Amino acid sequence: MAEAQQPAPMRWWGWGDPARPSGLPDQALAFLGATVGVAAQPRPPVALGSVRLSASRLKPATLQRLRDVLGAGAVREDHGARVLHAAGKGYPDLVRLRAGEPEGSPDAVLYPADHGQLRAVLAACAEASIAVVPFGGGTSVVGGVAPLAGEHGAVVALDTCRMGGVIALDRDSATVRVQGGMRAPALERHLSPRGLTLGHFPQSYEYVSLGGCAATRSAGQASSGYGAIEKMVLGLRLAAPNADIELPALPATAAGPGLRQLLVGSEGTLGVISELALRVRPAPAERRYEGVFFAELAAGAEALRALAREHVLPDVARLSDEQETRMSMALAGGGPKAALGRAYLALRGYRGGCLAILGFEGAAEDVAYRRSRALALARAHGGLPVGASPGRAWLAARYAAPYLRDDLLTHGVMVETLETATQWSNLLALHGRVVRAISAALAAAGTPGLVMCHVSHVYETGASLYFTFLARQQPDDPIGQWQTVKRAACEEIVAGGGTITHHHAVGLDHAPWMRREIGEGGLRALSAVKAELDPAGIMNPGKLGLLSRSG
Amino acid sequence: MAEAQQPAPMRWWGWGDPARPSGLPDQALAFLGATVGVAAQPRPPVALGSVRLSASRLKPATLQRLRDVLGAGAVREDHGARVLHAAGKGYPDLVRLRAGEPEGSPDAVLYPADHGQLRAVLAACAEASIAVVPFGGGTSVVGGVAPLAGEHGAVVALDTCRMGGVIALDRDSATVRVQGGMRAPALERHLSPRGLTLGHFPQSYEYVSLGGCAATRSAGQASSGYGAIEKMVLGLRLAAPNADIELPALPATAAGPGLRQLLVGSEGTLGVISELALRVRPAPAERRYEGVFFAELAAGAEALRALAREHVLPDVARLSDEQETRMSMALAGGGPKAALGRAYLALRGYRGGCLAILGFEGAAEDVAYRRSRALALARAHGGLPVGASPGRAWLAARYAAPYLRDDLLTHGVMVETLETATQWSNLLALHGRVVRAISAALAAAGTPGLVMCHVSHVYETGASLYFTFLARQQPDDPIGQWQTVKRAACEEIVAGGGTITHHHAVGLDHAPWMRREIGEGGLRALSAVKAELDPAGIMNPGKLGLLSRSG
Repeated sequence: MAEAQQPAPMRWWGWGDPARPSGLPDQALAFLGATVGVAAQPRPPVALGSVRLSASRLKPATLQRLRDVLGAGAVREDHGARVLHAAGKGYPDLVRLRAGEPEGSPDAVLYPADHGQLRAVLAACAEASIAVVPFGGGTSVVGGVAPLAGEHGAVVALDTCRMGGVIALDRDSATVRVQGGMRAPALERHLSPRGLTLGHFPQSYEYVSLGGCAATRSAGQASSGYGAIEKMVLGLRLAAPNADIELPALPATAAGPGLRQLLVGSEGTLGVISELALRVRPAPAERRYEGVFFAELAAGAEALRALAREHVLPDVARLSDEQETRMSMALAGGGPKAALGRAYLALRGYRGGCLAILGFEGAAEDVAYRRSRALALARAHGGLPVGASPGRAWLAARYAAPYLRDDLLTHGVMVETLETATQWSNLLALHGRVVRAISAALAAAGTPGLVMCHVSHVYETGASLYFTFLARQQPDDPIGQWQTVKRAACEEIVAGGGTITHHHAVGLDHAPWMRREIGEGGLRALSAVKAELDPAGIMNPGKLGLLSRSG
Repeated sequence: MAEAQQPAPMRWWGWGDPARPSGLPDQALAFLGATVGVAAQPRPPVALGSVRLSASRLKPATLQRLRDVLGAGAVREDHGARVLHAAGKGYPDLVRLRAGEPEGSPDAVLYPADHGQLRAVLAACAEASIAVVPFGGGTSVVGGVAPLAGEHGAVVALDTCRMGGVIALDRDSATVRVQGGMRAPALERHLSPRGLTLGHFPQSYEYVSLGGCAATRSAGQASSGYGAIEKMVLGLRLAAPNADIELPALPATAAGPGLRQLLVGSEGTLGVISELALRVRPAPAERRYEGVFFAELAAGAEALRALAREHVLPDVARLSDEQETRMSMALAGGGPKAALGRAYLALRGYRGGCLAILGFEGAAEDVAYRRSRALALARAHGGLPVGASPGRAWLAARYAAPYLRDDLLTHGVMVETLETATQWSNLLALHGRVVRAISAALAAAGTPGLVMCHVSHVYETGASLYFTFLARQQPDDPIGQWQTVKRAACEEIVAGGGTITHHHAVGLDHAPWMRREIGEGGLRALSAVKAELDPAGIMNPGKLGLLSRSG
């Protein structure tokens, strides 16, 4: 097995590399000041030592039992480890962490080294009635790693970072077998010199674990071409407290219900994905990114639908609405070239306008064919190709948004994203409904904001909608403010025929809407699986909205 | 809702339209006589009236209850209905039916008209402890509709033919919503005038129901392009004895485990799929079918792998091994044109050789691009394009094999097919193992036979292998003969790293291998879902190899 690589821990209070310099550009700060308003004084996070944690509830005998299973160094109770595993990276997580007041924290953090240790430690936790929260990259934005004990006396985070290696590469079958804790960039570093790629690039790419991606049905930014993670998982191995499930890599099978897809999306509630077999592809020989302007969202959406129907979708396909387009141009700012670009577009009647990024990756012939047909179809739908620079800009900044969020929080600006997917026939209606619902909720809270959206993750039958909103943070009750807006958006999404989540997963934040998503019958089916694999109910309590054993 | 169309019933003792003339061409009979041997006298099926059935075990009060729910005409106990639902269309089914001795028969046949009646009648059956076998087209070749009562006192077939209409077509979203009993040809007849197609053409196409296709993870002959049914199901509705599950049409969702894929492949063991939302596509403007000769199987497989890797797969991709190629040419027979063709191939060194059919369907530009690149890649792998006639011949005969089987049975020839899928790196090894295992089993039974195979259903990571074997039937124990060979093939498939089924499903015949396919943990997970949705265990007992409630 290739050596597991320990990724550097993230900023405990926010996103990414602690060494990366932060700070908003002046023009962005000015724009925000003029639109939603910023705090008079920056509000930095508290010091790590000031974060308040309850004392660990684990009894010495239990701790000793865990250490017997994993080794002493693989069971940590120190302040730093507990804070790093106290929350994911959702907006409320960061608000609470920065204030030094996480909602809770694991009583210990466990670091199993392999499937055997994983099974053994889950059995020990089941026996001792300790809740277990699987923790890969820790990047959940929906409360997926919230350290909830449920009905149990204590909770531990189970960090998979020691299970981070490549097990085997089958080049002929374009299949790589990895441990569940392997980070996405580590896999790309392994594949790249071999001329291969997984092609899974979510915004959280720099930190995500592949087991975590599978457990949360992650979709990368290039999912229109490479597919979401669910299309890549050919086989997997799950360690549950009361069972092992091992499903070998197969191109396809008709041997009964789709167990692979039952484990994909299980969000740690059934067990821990310890190994995965993933489809890989040749690394693209060519990448062509194109910007295309549309006069309005409807025209752009029609164009994307045509690309899907004609099977010439780019790998990356995103279409910003008017507000998001305006905002990107404002933040990208000022130079004479940008002004010239805007003047050019205005001249051609694209004054408001919606920018699409179409990114083609693959073999030269493949890229040439799809790009040429796609641009022709885009033109036929009123699109105006504006060259490679918007695509280049997007590529350069594709992982930057979570860093930006930290800076916005420092300046007292709430920023949150949420997403859905729906059929094409409902896309524009749902877009309008959700934008209006978020805007109204922000205004009702006394903090009118900016609401924007892009269409991405394009399918033949529909697409996803990804909303971003910004508003001045209410310093006295930022969590209540967020909850009000989030609830309004989620209600509108499910009432409007969208899924409660296209790729952020369910976690804690979307759990209240699962009954409307899959019905009582669906919840009962999933809860029955859980009761079989995890009869003590220790796995990630409270997530997915599963029914408790009593009802 | 569009009017449901009642399909004509099949020959009760075999395949297809009773009016279709039968009989083997002389050259085929001569070939078989010279290779595996044929019976001295034709052996026609017995008369319908001679088929032996046990008396119905349903009590009058129970029958009355069922009639109260469905209406008197929708509960049939007559000989004809019971025989028509006594078995599927597998080899042992036909052997037994032709002899007038089916293994069993349903005590009655139920014909619910809609989801509401379906739910009500399932509840009534659960209450009365009557096993229910969902019956769509009745085309299972793996014992999927065997009328087993399990632990119950009686068994009914639940025929979905009255639930056969289109509910709604959403053109913008390329999505059609149909009732589960709708037959595939009826849907194509609905879609075709609207310029659309589902693109699902299994060999059983003329009779299959779409709910049955979903329940058995069916894959059509054009699955390399359109995908298997699992890729087409966007939403569905299941009526279970103890629950309803309704999952709306969505292009994608990350809302937890993949419930859609849990119901796809459930083979009637959880409930009945009463409605489906299916992705449709534009009807192809162009169809180009090409024959390509390869000197050996390995070269052809490498070519198909390259097409998959380069994303220029044809919609239909099949590659016959040497034996299957030889056999098709022998059966296609004699004319001077065929002799000329063989001479031409021999001249170029393709004396044995493997024929591939590559079928491209779609928009003109799409077909032109894929065809041109695919043929270039095939040539680069040693392929010799031989024009459109092999493809035309295959298209013309694509649904003929089950008719041929009936004729072979009349002449005392056993013919059976079985299939698997595996990763590319294992494909040739598995092919060799299974061919040898079947050949050895046939020889050991004293009936040496012909064993042939084709590669089809091509994926980036692997492909399926579809085996056909012929041998002289042992008239004294044809079922025992078949069981020996089938068991040898299945053992070799699972020992050799293949799935027990790529698209025939599990049914009864593959149930013994499910434990090795998905493990004890997988079986327990599925059985837990069943216990929740069907606590009385009435749904399709014995199928899928699920664990009984007692463990």
